[in-house]
Amino acid sequence: MVSSAQLANRCSVNAAQVRKDLAYFGEFGIRGVGYYVKDLLQDIKRILGLNKEWRMAVIGIGNLGSALLSYKDFLKQNYKIVAAFDINPLEVIERVSEKLGQPVEVIHISRLKEVARDRRIEIGIITTPPSEAQSVANLLVEAGIRGILNFAPTQIKVPEGYIVKDVFFTSILDNLAYLLSNS
Amino acid sequence: MVSSAQLANRCSVNAAQVRKDLAYFGEFGIRGVGYYVKDLLQDIKRILGLNKEWRMAVIGIGNLGSALLSYKDFLKQNYKIVAAFDINPLEVIERVSEKLGQPVEVIHISRLKEVARDRRIEIGIITTPPSEAQSVANLLVEAGIRGILNFAPTQIKVPEGYIVKDVFFTSILDNLAYLLSNS
Repeated sequence: MVSSAQLANRCSVNAAQVRKDLAYFGEFGIRGVGYYVKDLLQDIKRILGLNKEWRMAVIGIGNLGSALLSYKDFLKQNYKIVAAFDINPLEVIERVSEKLGQPVEVIHISRLKEVARDRRIEIGIITTPPSEAQSVANLLVEAGIRGILNFAPTQIKVPEGYIVKDVFFTSILDNLAYLLSNS
Repeated sequence: MVSSAQLANRCSVNAAQVRKDLAYFGEFGIRGVGYYVKDLLQDIKRILGLNKEWRMAVIGIGNLGSALLSYKDFLKQNYKIVAAFDINPLEVIERVSEKLGQPVEVIHISRLKEVARDRRIEIGIITTPPSEAQSVANLLVEAGIRGILNFAPTQIKVPEGYIVKDVFFTSILDNLAYLLSNS
């Protein structure tokens, strides 16, 4: 069993918040006692869409893209990179394979649609230069890849039903700089 | 001049939101006309703490750390990486210099405090394995570095007056997975 206080402590929030957040999704645990860890884990995974494997592609294998290819934390969760694409795969394969110390497969971007279907890719990670991000997003949309994680520092537009999450390092730094300036 | 509608369009929000957000910080622009671009830029930079250069250190020069060393978008803004630290600098220098195609200075972590003072470092970027993140954060605190950008997928604790911003790739993917599962 685990109590909301114990969960709160692990997450650096307060216990009331933990209970409130869980209550938003239904009834969990036993009042005054806590939660069965195993049940709660399964419930949370189901709520979050993590009771399945998410198959991802990285597009643009520069420094950041290749860092993501070897990012260990993805595999601990249910995120699996099943394809890497670049406009210049031959050059990239050599550089990245040497760097990661293992052979890496990088596919030409022109094959995105076909590979996305064969490998059932659901999430595309854009790590191209910003100038290429929108055209890559268009290819992802065309391939029916509904989820996009965008690291290219530019706004991209997608049709309804597609979801983009941006990871803009400088925006996060802007937020930090603001807090540092005003504290 | 630029209107709130034009700004809104660029940011994919609505014009009322732009006006409301700016009003939060004071009086800007001319009602019914718009904003002087040059003045507005300066005002926003001042509000955000971007009217100065922020001097940063990266700690942990693995794949992600070295990708950040060559991340071009930082320099377009006022963010400057002025030092890189690792526990194993000699090995790292060779690998990263080759990868980035230019000599890179990497300093042993034991010199953090001294270098932080000499180079006036204000922001520390943690890209170590999660097991090392808290001890690196402690060193940053000891060196008086008040801002921390934490890429290591673990919660770190700092005393009051210090600010941590986390960039957890899997948390962002969790959010994307949730949205994909529920749409």
